Amino acid sequence: MSIRIGIVGYGNLSRGVESAIRQNPDLELVAVFTRRDPSALKIKTEGIPVCSVDEIEKWKEKIDVLVLGGGSATDLPEQTPKYAQWFNVVDSFDTHAKIPVHFTNVDAAARKSGHVGIISVGWDPGMFSLIRMVSTSVLPEGSNYTFWGRGVSQGHSDAIRRIPGVKDARQYTVPVEASVESVRKGENPELTTRQMHTRECYVVAEEGADLSQIEKQIKEMPNYFADYDTTVHFISQEELNENHKGLPHGGFVLRSGVTGFEKENKHIIEYRLQLDSNPEFTGSVIAAYARAAYKLNKEGQSGCKTVFDIAPIYLSSESPDEVRAHLL
Amino acid sequence: MSIRIGIVGYGNLSRGVESAIRQNPDLELVAVFTRRDPSALKIKTEGIPVCSVDEIEKWKEKIDVLVLGGGSATDLPEQTPKYAQWFNVVDSFDTHAKIPVHFTNVDAAARKSGHVGIISVGWDPGMFSLIRMVSTSVLPEGSNYTFWGRGVSQGHSDAIRRIPGVKDARQYTVPVEASVESVRKGENPELTTRQMHTRECYVVAEEGADLSQIEKQIKEMPNYFADYDTTVHFISQEELNENHKGLPHGGFVLRSGVTGFEKENKHIIEYRLQLDSNPEFTGSVIAAYARAAYKLNKEGQSGCKTVFDIAPIYLSSESPDEVRAHLL
Repeated sequence: MSIRIGIVGYGNLSRGVESAIRQNPDLELVAVFTRRDPSALKIKTEGIPVCSVDEIEKWKEKIDVLVLGGGSATDLPEQTPKYAQWFNVVDSFDTHAKIPVHFTNVDAAARKSGHVGIISVGWDPGMFSLIRMVSTSVLPEGSNYTFWGRGVSQGHSDAIRRIPGVKDARQYTVPVEASVESVRKGENPELTTRQMHTRECYVVAEEGADLSQIEKQIKEMPNYFADYDTTVHFISQEELNENHKGLPHGGFVLRSGVTGFEKENKHIIEYRLQLDSNPEFTGSVIAAYARAAYKLNKEGQSGCKTVFDIAPIYLSSESPDEVRAHLL
Repeated sequence: MSIRIGIVGYGNLSRGVESAIRQNPDLELVAVFTRRDPSALKIKTEGIPVCSVDEIEKWKEKIDVLVLGGGSATDLPEQTPKYAQWFNVVDSFDTHAKIPVHFTNVDAAARKSGHVGIISVGWDPGMFSLIRMVSTSVLPEGSNYTFWGRGVSQGHSDAIRRIPGVKDARQYTVPVEASVESVRKGENPELTTRQMHTRECYVVAEEGADLSQIEKQIKEMPNYFADYDTTVHFISQEELNENHKGLPHGGFVLRSGVTGFEKENKHIIEYRLQLDSNPEFTGSVIAAYARAAYKLNKEGQSGCKTVFDIAPIYLSSESPDEVRAHLL
């Protein structure tokens, strides 16, 4: 019998989860839930019902794990605790500063209902967190470095689109290669924001817009661009559609540490992701953790969990014997 | 109160563990056990008793976790199950093909005594296994690649030293850079043994030895060298002592996978280690898993575990709240 998955929402991330489920024979998509008119939403997988979120409680006995595809700003703080009263849930909550509060809320709801809620699943937070944590435990004396990119930041692209005169935009976050190399060599550099990443913007302007004014507004935007070396390229909508349609991303987590009685030996742990599709990879991580949520709950566990709390074996579709025999 | 650690043996790995304990304030070395005459062994840490393994049972109540520094060929198959009757134990058993049998033996002993035994801890098996397994779960359609090096293989160095006329030797395992690059680009190559690694040998010959005969014997040695492109350099003992004294190692684990309805998107996960000291890094991993063995046993768990069975949080000296706040 497969693990029955429901998905709330049908944006990029939810479609990534939908796609990942097809690659995992033990997972089965059983319904997609929307806040819009269900009859107006056509999903890719044939024969799967699209339902209103208002009816979600009726699915209590028909869904093993509910995946929440919404955003961290307003959707997940409300949805994850709410749906944990009826389902095992998995989300990709990524507002780092608010994780402790979100954890507390989901934990209370999930404990009360006897479900498992796994939050902040994806690659950062998610796989990168796992590596940071294990590496820090293994090399307690050292420094962590996280570089993102080269990849599309949807938040930064949106910020550019809100500037008057901008029709469309894509922003790439790019790690500064010299800084990555310095860390890799064990030089333990202290890096400013500007030394870690640059920002490349591809902007489609409206006809007659003041390009130098747009460029100035981008480069001086606080938090988003002011602390970075930013380049702005004005291109046509056709060129943007042609060359910047994908959502590639990735990055590096490095830990540089020392061992030895005299701390004379250096060690570098490096974890790198190169992703053609950010939402599909994130969806794939979520699919594996949905399996874990199901297995943990079957064992009688409940409450909120993160990637730190889950033994790797729960992610696998194989038995412990199989995994030990060919992956250890 | 610290976690009290005992170490069996005092070879390279045990000294790596000894060194790692000093970097973890919650761990404390309380005794080293030897099969030799304890009075003949002087250890680096001052004030710590060196005892005969014959007296180890007396330490039952004074040690929280016993680390086994012995070899996989003959020591660990006997020692790990034996000492699991009195202690929580951690070993670095690395004969991949015999892991299932070793697991079964340690599991039976540890369950019976109510202790935790963690086997096959280090970087391969160990960290590399963890990455292979998590990556395979996240990208179920794809291929795994493991490259070792550049680093010293002690087994291969020993094999050369057994050749008549050889006084000393160091063998480096070197990944074929073009093959690593091909995997990194997502080309999914099928690689033969020869295409993955080369072997570099630095050999000190006895005076008057037939060098071409030694070189031939190395290059034709089955399993160890015959399937590889091997280079042999004859050097002086002084040069070997000067330039090849360390035990650096490392390597790469890569998973190359696809996602999407048409499997149109490629993803590369890469994990790389660059280690100045193989035994000190392995010892550092063991120290973190010794902490996990203690915590798991305190929670009432028993039996044999591997890196697959242990949630990352158990490796950390920090509380779950702290770790969530700054590493997630």
